[in-house]
Amino acid sequence: MARLVMKFGGTSVADIERIRNVARHVKREAEAGHEVAVVVSAMAGKTDELVGWTREASPLHDAREYDTVVAAGEQITAGLLSIVLQNMGVDARSWQGWQIPIRTNNAHGAARIEDIDGTLLRERLAMEQVAVIAGFQGIGPDNRIATLGRGGSDTSAVAIAAALEADRCDIYTDVDGVYTTDPRMEPRARRLDKISFEEMLEMASLGAKILQVRSVELAMVHGVRTFVRSSFEDPDNVQAGHGNQPAGTLICDEEEIVEKPVVTGIAYSKDEAQISLRRVPDKPGISAAIFGPLADNHINVDMIVQSVSEDGSKTDMTFTVAEPDAAKAIKILENNQDAISYQLIQTDSGLTKVSVIGIGMRSHAGVASTAFAALSEKGINIRAITTSEIKFSLLIDADYTELAVRTLHSVYNLNRE
Amino acid sequence: MARLVMKFGGTSVADIERIRNVARHVKREAEAGHEVAVVVSAMAGKTDELVGWTREASPLHDAREYDTVVAAGEQITAGLLSIVLQNMGVDARSWQGWQIPIRTNNAHGAARIEDIDGTLLRERLAMEQVAVIAGFQGIGPDNRIATLGRGGSDTSAVAIAAALEADRCDIYTDVDGVYTTDPRMEPRARRLDKISFEEMLEMASLGAKILQVRSVELAMVHGVRTFVRSSFEDPDNVQAGHGNQPAGTLICDEEEIVEKPVVTGIAYSKDEAQISLRRVPDKPGISAAIFGPLADNHINVDMIVQSVSEDGSKTDMTFTVAEPDAAKAIKILENNQDAISYQLIQTDSGLTKVSVIGIGMRSHAGVASTAFAALSEKGINIRAITTSEIKFSLLIDADYTELAVRTLHSVYNLNRE
Repeated sequence: MARLVMKFGGTSVADIERIRNVARHVKREAEAGHEVAVVVSAMAGKTDELVGWTREASPLHDAREYDTVVAAGEQITAGLLSIVLQNMGVDARSWQGWQIPIRTNNAHGAARIEDIDGTLLRERLAMEQVAVIAGFQGIGPDNRIATLGRGGSDTSAVAIAAALEADRCDIYTDVDGVYTTDPRMEPRARRLDKISFEEMLEMASLGAKILQVRSVELAMVHGVRTFVRSSFEDPDNVQAGHGNQPAGTLICDEEEIVEKPVVTGIAYSKDEAQISLRRVPDKPGISAAIFGPLADNHINVDMIVQSVSEDGSKTDMTFTVAEPDAAKAIKILENNQDAISYQLIQTDSGLTKVSVIGIGMRSHAGVASTAFAALSEKGINIRAITTSEIKFSLLIDADYTELAVRTLHSVYNLNRE
Repeated sequence: MARLVMKFGGTSVADIERIRNVARHVKREAEAGHEVAVVVSAMAGKTDELVGWTREASPLHDAREYDTVVAAGEQITAGLLSIVLQNMGVDARSWQGWQIPIRTNNAHGAARIEDIDGTLLRERLAMEQVAVIAGFQGIGPDNRIATLGRGGSDTSAVAIAAALEADRCDIYTDVDGVYTTDPRMEPRARRLDKISFEEMLEMASLGAKILQVRSVELAMVHGVRTFVRSSFEDPDNVQAGHGNQPAGTLICDEEEIVEKPVVTGIAYSKDEAQISLRRVPDKPGISAAIFGPLADNHINVDMIVQSVSEDGSKTDMTFTVAEPDAAKAIKILENNQDAISYQLIQTDSGLTKVSVIGIGMRSHAGVASTAFAALSEKGINIRAITTSEIKFSLLIDADYTELAVRTLHSVYNLNRE
């Protein structure tokens, strides 16, 4: 007997037929004697429709009203899944954020969960009632619905698992786990049985779109064992429970991972732009003058490279931003030309960041140099490098993305046999 | 300066363009200095879509989950209208039943409002903020959303007007008022400037589909002056306020009506069925034996006629039910054949009930006999008659509906000059 949180995304609940399939997954676990809380997203397309209406109503809109409108999507799915479960003979009821309550901060539209009161849910779970919870939302200090931002249902699920001290949080999605790299780019990618929280956080941050970054952070902080698996498997062909391991990837503490490869996976993120400020005076406070105004405008800066000129009085400052932010960033830097006093500003777009991730790097030297040699052999120019304890990232021209990913995947022995 | 409740139905908020039109109506009243609370329905078609999904999920479903799903429609409209109002420079916020709160009883799917706490709303109205309230819903004693049944937004509006002691409750709808009869049946029907609560209650109960019966009851009990008007008029061509009277019909206390005609309007209701039990023993308790089981099964019985046989020992019992209930009623009566011991059961369907309504009847005799003579002259057979203080109803073959309505409309001088 275990306590499980099961999360189903929009494509898994796109219509009543698929909701019935979800219900069979839930029924399997409930009938195995587990306590089950289910977190659901809006039916696929529903959130886009609701968001579209708020935009049509006004391009600029009150985030609290946006939340009121958009949260309706998950509310609907939660009610429908409860009806289907009851129809299958499974005791179930729907819960909305304000009923539990799931308390958030006041940042409507992109709120953070601050506290979940698990008392009511635990009572019902103990009575063998399945709790069907509307994902993506809670209630703010103003007693109004607050949503967590797109993809927030993953975060809801992990936070609820933490509050309920669940044995596992199962994320049912349209892929059957986390792969060594994107299988659409490298068909020889292998599904990982296990990956550590730290590695998954890097994978999610660096481009793998399986889980929302915040949900992985939360899982890491609270030690929530999170299992990524497919919702499209035949629900009756899978064994229930948390002791066994069906097809999927368990995100867990690295202690649980016996064999730690040096490299676990390759992530990539397209649509990077590189901005270079040429001949900036090399004096204290210059970084703040450049990056302060960008941060104030919510532009994330990454991969900063500083190269000093021969006489040491001037420096070149090069960094990346997401492509869609590039124009805005340039404008901000131009407005701050007096304070920074660069001589020239240059932009390159159409770049890709390829990242190599593995907790084994901590205890192995020279991991990156293997990559440099392999890419050089293929004639791929590396424009910037950043490293951290368990990953390094390389900036390259987007044209070489696939070649670089496949080369690295092969050189670190990640290919499926 | 007045306090107004404005209610807009589904066709008035069917898309963002129409919601903008609604917002212009609201803005007009707010800018005239009035305190404004707006009650909205779901966008046209939305409720049907949501109800359809609950049926697809399971033909029999938990009314609490049904409420969770279906209430999302009004929640969405309330958020969208608030966004549009803010965009027009009108301070506004959306309210859901559980936020106000609007407390209902526990009869999910067809709940009754028990109490509305007007404190928060009054505070905001005093700050010149428009309150945009999701109609059709409140919160039950179980802390879950409870809906009021189809058309319940009218009831929400009147109940809120009562709680706020509003000067008037404006029901914006797709017709521009209450007519002496259905204008689709009689083009010479006149719009009434005023109609008393009692008359409107009869009109609504007897087939006029302009307002939900319960909302009229509530308006009568609390003396809420209710004004039925068109939402499709140009919002800027109407004067604001409650002192003037734009095109529409005011439902009010009869004290406010100076000229009281004998007959105010003609209502009709198609799809009536007549059931006859032949040769029932005429003994005490026989009515209870017949009508008890029908009431237990929520079948409304109307227009009861009892005719005693020559020797007085047997009686024929004839009554009407709504056509869709007829088959069920017959089955129940057949199951109770032993207790009732009728000799024969007969049904006629395809009947219409035509009703003549007017508070002036109280002080005028012979009003009904005019109708009998006029219908007889046209060869229309009257199958049953019921009367009350301010109305009488006649049961006829549905084929004669239009002829009967037009004949009565003319004979009581209701035709437009």
